[in-house]
Amino acid sequence: MDALKSKIRHVPDFPKPGILFYDITTLLKEATGFRSAIDHLVAPFEAESIDLVAGIESRGFIFGAAVAARLGTGFVPIRKPGKLPAATERASYALEYGTDSIEIHKDAVRKGERVLVVDDLLATGGTARAAAELITTLGGVVHAFAFLIELEFLNGREKLTGQRIHSVLKY
Amino acid sequence: MDALKSKIRHVPDFPKPGILFYDITTLLKEATGFRSAIDHLVAPFEAESIDLVAGIESRGFIFGAAVAARLGTGFVPIRKPGKLPAATERASYALEYGTDSIEIHKDAVRKGERVLVVDDLLATGGTARAAAELITTLGGVVHAFAFLIELEFLNGREKLTGQRIHSVLKY
Repeated sequence: MDALKSKIRHVPDFPKPGILFYDITTLLKEATGFRSAIDHLVAPFEAESIDLVAGIESRGFIFGAAVAARLGTGFVPIRKPGKLPAATERASYALEYGTDSIEIHKDAVRKGERVLVVDDLLATGGTARAAAELITTLGGVVHAFAFLIELEFLNGREKLTGQRIHSVLKY
Repeated sequence: MDALKSKIRHVPDFPKPGILFYDITTLLKEATGFRSAIDHLVAPFEAESIDLVAGIESRGFIFGAAVAARLGTGFVPIRKPGKLPAATERASYALEYGTDSIEIHKDAVRKGERVLVVDDLLATGGTARAAAELITTLGGVVHAFAFLIELEFLNGREKLTGQRIHSVLKY
């Protein structure tokens, strides 16, 4: 995984002082880097029965759509509030100060459909847990989570107990 | 194309009264619809020399990433202001009232690289023209534009004179 890690740019103090941002755009723009990231994201799931891939806005759309294309499934966008045009379910999660929300279309997942949730980053796990809530509210089953990057020191896994979690790069 | 069109949901009065919104989420969630959309988006370009696919935030990330994965190229996100962590170029475009901007990383495209610009929708063409500006400012070459949907009555092509434009579904 060192070859992949070497393609990720470290940007200090973004989006605010004291945060070290892992910039995946330097990996995405290289054909071999992008392909390898998708290879590693899908590897555990290629022989499994998955109906849908859900991607969380915005960077989760990039990996989620590529993973769905590779697995041959449909794709479901989980979006920031007010972006989806039809009837939605909403779930909230805690931020450092305050809360934020994400939405899914009520008809995005059918009862019993197995959904792989894809995002670029597992940090505190709040968004991922909210995404799982949305999917189970609709009657879907969270097959697993797949992240390109996991920041282990933020203990995001603790918010996703009982879930299967696949992360490609750990920091 | 009628099979694809039948999978797109029409939502009246979104995001505001009088606008008919073409909701692609009903197409994306069906494996056959998503695959067919990508098939048609890439068809003209499969045998051509393309270095990068650029997708415009947010829905352009979904189609752009899937197209890049299919063509085996790298992917470049063109984002709303303040989202990209490293040094950026910015271009503005007119809205009905006021202006908006998009950004690209300064190191996203190398001199002479051929870039396919992908978005879900060609409406008035303002965003697409701004994306082309950004790519040429960096020394890149806009190989073509690929859109899933073109709203012909908005004459977006007029803003993209001299460019090659591929749209899958026309309204």
